[in-house]
Amino acid sequence: MSVSTTLVALLHGQDQPGLVARVAGWVFARGGNILHADQHSDREQGVFFQRVEWICAPGPLSPLRVAKEFNAFAKSLGMQASIALSTQRPRVAVFVSKADHCFHDLALRWRAGEFSGDLVAVISNHRDLAKAAKSYGLPYHYIPVRAESKGAAERRQLQLLRKLDVELVVLARYMQVLSAELLGAFGRPVINIHHSFLPAFAGGRPYHQAHARGVKLIGATAHYATRDLDEGPIIHQDVARVTHRHGVEDLVRMGRDLEKRVLAQAVRWHLESRVLAYGNKTVVFD
Amino acid sequence: MSVSTTLVALLHGQDQPGLVARVAGWVFARGGNILHADQHSDREQGVFFQRVEWICAPGPLSPLRVAKEFNAFAKSLGMQASIALSTQRPRVAVFVSKADHCFHDLALRWRAGEFSGDLVAVISNHRDLAKAAKSYGLPYHYIPVRAESKGAAERRQLQLLRKLDVELVVLARYMQVLSAELLGAFGRPVINIHHSFLPAFAGGRPYHQAHARGVKLIGATAHYATRDLDEGPIIHQDVARVTHRHGVEDLVRMGRDLEKRVLAQAVRWHLESRVLAYGNKTVVFD
Amino acid sequence: MSVSTTLVALLHGQDQPGLVARVAGWVFARGGNILHADQHSDREQGVFFQRVEWICAPGPLSPLRVAKEFNAFAKSLGMQASIALSTQRPRVAVFVSKADHCFHDLALRWRAGEFSGDLVAVISNHRDLAKAAKSYGLPYHYIPVRAESKGAAERRQLQLLRKLDVELVVLARYMQVLSAELLGAFGRPVINIHHSFLPAFAGGRPYHQAHARGVKLIGATAHYATRDLDEGPIIHQDVARVTHRHGVEDLVRMGRDLEKRVLAQAVRWHLESRVLAYGNKTVVFD
Amino acid sequence: MSVSTTLVALLHGQDQPGLVARVAGWVFARGGNILHADQHSDREQGVFFQRVEWICAPGPLSPLRVAKEFNAFAKSLGMQASIALSTQRPRVAVFVSKADHCFHDLALRWRAGEFSGDLVAVISNHRDLAKAAKSYGLPYHYIPVRAESKGAAERRQLQLLRKLDVELVVLARYMQVLSAELLGAFGRPVINIHHSFLPAFAGGRPYHQAHARGVKLIGATAHYATRDLDEGPIIHQDVARVTHRHGVEDLVRMGRDLEKRVLAQAVRWHLESRVLAYGNKTVVFD
Repeated sequence: MSVSTTLVALLHGQDQPGLVARVAGWVFARGGNILHADQHSDREQGVFFQRVEWICAPGPLSPLRVAKEFNAFAKSLGMQASIALSTQRPRVAVFVSKADHCFHDLALRWRAGEFSGDLVAVISNHRDLAKAAKSYGLPYHYIPVRAESKGAAERRQLQLLRKLDVELVVLARYMQVLSAELLGAFGRPVINIHHSFLPAFAGGRPYHQAHARGVKLIGATAHYATRDLDEGPIIHQDVARVTHRHGVEDLVRMGRDLEKRVLAQAVRWHLESRVLAYGNKTVVFD
Repeated sequence: MSVSTTLVALLHGQDQPGLVARVAGWVFARGGNILHADQHSDREQGVFFQRVEWICAPGPLSPLRVAKEFNAFAKSLGMQASIALSTQRPRVAVFVSKADHCFHDLALRWRAGEFSGDLVAVISNHRDLAKAAKSYGLPYHYIPVRAESKGAAERRQLQLLRKLDVELVVLARYMQVLSAELLGAFGRPVINIHHSFLPAFAGGRPYHQAHARGVKLIGATAHYATRDLDEGPIIHQDVARVTHRHGVEDLVRMGRDLEKRVLAQAVRWHLESRVLAYGNKTVVFD
Repeated sequence: MSVSTTLVALLHGQDQPGLVARVAGWVFARGGNILHADQHSDREQGVFFQRVEWICAPGPLSPLRVAKEFNAFAKSLGMQASIALSTQRPRVAVFVSKADHCFHDLALRWRAGEFSGDLVAVISNHRDLAKAAKSYGLPYHYIPVRAESKGAAERRQLQLLRKLDVELVVLARYMQVLSAELLGAFGRPVINIHHSFLPAFAGGRPYHQAHARGVKLIGATAHYATRDLDEGPIIHQDVARVTHRHGVEDLVRMGRDLEKRVLAQAVRWHLESRVLAYGNKTVVFD
Repeated sequence: MSVSTTLVALLHGQDQPGLVARVAGWVFARGGNILHADQHSDREQGVFFQRVEWICAPGPLSPLRVAKEFNAFAKSLGMQASIALSTQRPRVAVFVSKADHCFHDLALRWRAGEFSGDLVAVISNHRDLAKAAKSYGLPYHYIPVRAESKGAAERRQLQLLRKLDVELVVLARYMQVLSAELLGAFGRPVINIHHSFLPAFAGGRPYHQAHARGVKLIGATAHYATRDLDEGPIIHQDVARVTHRHGVEDLVRMGRDLEKRVLAQAVRWHLESRVLAYGNKTVVFD
């Protein structure tokens, strides 16, 4: 089993000479064969980032053990590391409201094998998509959210995420803001799709804003959710061309396509351990 | 001579049934042959927009006379019209500072015959591009602009624009803001290129802003200059993909390509009477 | 009911002066209000193309009757016309084999109201997508196709298309070639999606061909199916950027996204009477 | 001086475990600091590719000496390597005929500092661009090429390239085919721009071919010139959207923009040692 396990490490920390050689040497000394290694130095901030993917040699050490030792090794270099094993597929919860386009898109891609992770639950403040979730064999958790009971609803959400050991939350056009408390307590990444080219048209009704301003391109932005709404690190963005002929309804329709593609790409990259967030930015090793 | 004259009318006004038929009928009754007719109805505002291009029949009426009569006809429909004759190429002044990429791009395209208009002057607050202008046979007018004498400088600019009968000003990375007074007194269109995807990163140093925010696309926006800086009607926009590997210097280099293309496209469309501005938006009949 | 009926006419024929005025005048004289009118003259071939969309005035003539009279009028101008009524939604049959991405995409868009037509049947040479079809409430017709009995299978297909009064067939990665006999007997449009940027990589396994050639972009092409495989009039094309890192499997995955988008756009345009095929080309009034 | 010298090595050869570690270790042991290291394994062919860029430490060994030793080291690993020093800017000759858009674009970018190399000569079979070359201070070599004396002309070209120690030839819409003899005798890379999305529309008049076929995208392809015309390894490609409204003249105009951008990008990448050709493909470390 361990023969074919691949490990992916995401590292970052203060830049210093010889990091590439040390990391490669460490892997090689343990019989690992590096498939990909990509790094980036942020010269302004003096930070080094690396993604290393290697096949773990069969041997006395289990891949899990190698991962732990790599973590200690990284720490000895003054770096922070997170390691993923190809044998452990991250568990993903999708939050939805009423709009279904991003949900179907994610579910179909998951079923087509496009993601290195598994959808395990759909959580919603509405009942609308229950049947759709069922058609993919996905458990649907209806947790209504009302202003006066938002705290209680979020406690239920958190409990569920913990019980299901969810490692990634995807907000697939979920129309509620997750509180800073929930984000903090969950402590794992949350990816959101915003239907504009951020930082343009942050906030509500971005297609109406875009139409009112008369822009010639509309966009979508996938980002990690943080305490500051629409301000989290951007993972991916794309745009589509519009003209004066397109009314708000057209922008909404065209935007759906953008949202689907941009969100799916961000989720795919995240699940392949290609995204490293630092400050309010990301490094994407694509 | 008049045999081959084509006229292009840009019309707009309150929508009403039968406008397409009336305009087409008017042209046909005068022996004109419509080459293109494109229209748009803004349902929200109840405004009708049209671009009609036709070959003027040889006959007792000169094309100029036909144009005048068309104007009167449009007025009788409650519409505003502007008409261009293929035999009268608009005269264009280019404002530059030190950056030369947009200037060379415009000049080379003009020389290659890509524009339905002619560059007739280069106006600058610096001497840097005098030699470049000369290499294209273009008169260079050095008008220094200092905070304390900006009014006087603008009066010289205005005088020059009037003397040269300039019908379009292109701000090709001109690093001074034209005052509301100058814009008002000139009273003809001014196209500016802003080096971001407006409304994101309005104001100064947009590439630095983009880099700091960690966006994954950078943009450029060509718009009509109005009293409100960076708020004028957008004519054209485009974007390019960037990654964490691109520093500000790279964004500047990649942005130059965007700026050139976006500005040239906007100028081409404007000179072909394809752009109709209303409110803070444009209709582009491309 | 007839109050809100809109008609869309697609016209083409030999170019001649006054066509725009005559058509607009005809509509206006019958109380119609033109919403959009777009035309194109192919100067090389001397052919005039027009798409006119108008609201039919309530009155003694039913919209269907207006449509018939328009047809006669067009004929009197030496033009061919086809007219669609907003109250008559075209009936669409989707042909599939085993790949499901284009099918789900079309079905979801249809359900989201993106198409001006209705899916009425799924026809397949395999049983694989029967359950998927059912989940959208779509009848599934399993018609196996074997080399030795292809003629019989096609007769069954044709019978079904006629019985269901299908007006458009969409080949959504259907892995059988429709014979010239079937295409001729059906006599209505058939849209196919080819998974390459035609004319590059016509024929089978285009992603393998693209990979072997080392191209930096892969594409997809939606076209009308004709007797000449992969040679029919192109409706829409798009591409995606690939690198040396992408193996054939990646091209296939990325290609799925292209195929979905390109096919859906072509189908949408067709159903909105925006596509006029002539010779081996199309005019798309978008 | 040697303090700031950076070296870039491009390596390829049979894949084997530990290559990344060995190369990084070799550099580190000599006090070098790796700025970027990117690699790729072609699993089908079992070939390993790497680009390593490092700052050479000041010390007893000159950068040139380090480069030579690295070459020997690579050979000991069974790899082929080529090494570039940041202090040695490649010398580039541009071949042109009458079209000037790619030439001006390359010259302006070179002057703007966008290339890690220097234009040193313009060679042409026509006199048309002599003045343009002079305006950039570039020597212009007029070498007419006629069918009956092509061999003699190519001998003059080769002599010139050798005398000037040219390391890269760029065919900037040069309308003559370089013979296999010249390519072989020169023995250094030659980049060509073809005005179509290869392999579609190889050969002459690609815009006419594209127009005749009715494609919805036109393209441009930069590739290394080889004995097989239009078959060399592709470095970069891009496309632009066209419609039925665009005649051949428009395609030509729009194509100029594509050609400029695609060729400039390919030349930039090549001069930064980012392109590794093998077989009829390229690995581009961008």
